[in-house]
Amino acid sequence: MTDHTVRAYDRELETLGQRIAEMGGIAERMLSDAMDALAKLDVDLAKKTIGVDPRLDALQREVEDNAILTIARRQPMAVDLRECVAAIRVSGDLERVGDLAKNIAKRAAKIAGEARLPRGIVGLKSMHELAAMQLKDVLDAYAQHDVERARAVWTRDAELDALEDSVFRDLLTFMMEDPRNITFCTHLLFCSKNIERIGDHTTNIAETVIYLVTGEAPQIERPKGETSMVKR
Amino acid sequence: MTDHTVRAYDRELETLGQRIAEMGGIAERMLSDAMDALAKLDVDLAKKTIGVDPRLDALQREVEDNAILTIARRQPMAVDLRECVAAIRVSGDLERVGDLAKNIAKRAAKIAGEARLPRGIVGLKSMHELAAMQLKDVLDAYAQHDVERARAVWTRDAELDALEDSVFRDLLTFMMEDPRNITFCTHLLFCSKNIERIGDHTTNIAETVIYLVTGEAPQIERPKGETSMVKR
Repeated sequence: MTDHTVRAYDRELETLGQRIAEMGGIAERMLSDAMDALAKLDVDLAKKTIGVDPRLDALQREVEDNAILTIARRQPMAVDLRECVAAIRVSGDLERVGDLAKNIAKRAAKIAGEARLPRGIVGLKSMHELAAMQLKDVLDAYAQHDVERARAVWTRDAELDALEDSVFRDLLTFMMEDPRNITFCTHLLFCSKNIERIGDHTTNIAETVIYLVTGEAPQIERPKGETSMVKR
Repeated sequence: MTDHTVRAYDRELETLGQRIAEMGGIAERMLSDAMDALAKLDVDLAKKTIGVDPRLDALQREVEDNAILTIARRQPMAVDLRECVAAIRVSGDLERVGDLAKNIAKRAAKIAGEARLPRGIVGLKSMHELAAMQLKDVLDAYAQHDVERARAVWTRDAELDALEDSVFRDLLTFMMEDPRNITFCTHLLFCSKNIERIGDHTTNIAETVIYLVTGEAPQIERPKGETSMVKR
């Protein structure tokens, strides 16, 4: 590329990175607000969280469009091409993290009127703490092209799956103890599944960081998901 | 583009279309096999279904890589560019349809030993029939660039959400009737959610077909999902 093209290209990549950083911040905030809304059964906070989602959707479409146009305009190769592909993938994962947080917020608003079972929330809080830390780490790993940090996130996802298994068992027990818990706990079951899926998207982003920097997908079998799904 | 370039480009697009058609066939088969495995609690069929998924993942990566390379090589514009973007999006949705069918198969294998509640499956069968028809229609709409057919699929998704609401209520009732149904019905709850999400990906594909042909996203508010999540 000419110097001029290179500079223009760098500006385009820089903009992509800024948009994804903004998406990451929104997704993190949506998750923590949704979990607060669930813990406090705060309908207003739930609605506020739901209202933020369209911004995340718009940013994803913008990142995808711009990354595609950059590929078509600049014909980047190797790592430059991977930067554009990674932007498309990461924005897609962050958009879905927002959808999952939104769904938690919607369930919080829905069950605000239901009989409450504080014990049911405890396990979800632990899942949220881990998922939020993982999301923060992977966003840093992406921003810094830090493969080791991405690998650590990727490996730690198994802990989140293990947590979800125990939450799953606890919630089933609460339901069996008292049928009045069934509706409430069913929504919590879906919320815990949503947090696990946020962990899956975080793991996807970790894989994208590894691909971005090394050009390869992780070789070892992914620690998460598959087996945990079978356990239930 | 030169004639030569055009011919090479057409061949690349043709190959993308063939791969996506193959992905669609695999995803449709995985869904029907997973639902058969669930209805018959057939562990062997469930395992067979799970074993097919890696092929779908490999095809998605192939479609994504080739579409990106085509964009970088041919610098397509307008509808030609949209063909490549659509291939990336559709392959992503079909890969997730396969994941969701795989999860249904895993739950079928898991609950094969559990107490059975045949009534619990009935609503899921209706959901499956509609979801399978929708998936077939949207794959045809994509292959034929048929916007009207895509719009019909897009609109009909609301029916699947309504079905899931009634399945959700039925399964909760069964759980309240008899605690021994709770574990089994919880897995069915997640299966019905999986079918609803397959419907969401089908709707995404319908939107991609509309974008591919018209260059625009559907203007009216999407009929599905959001509200159905709140209903519970």
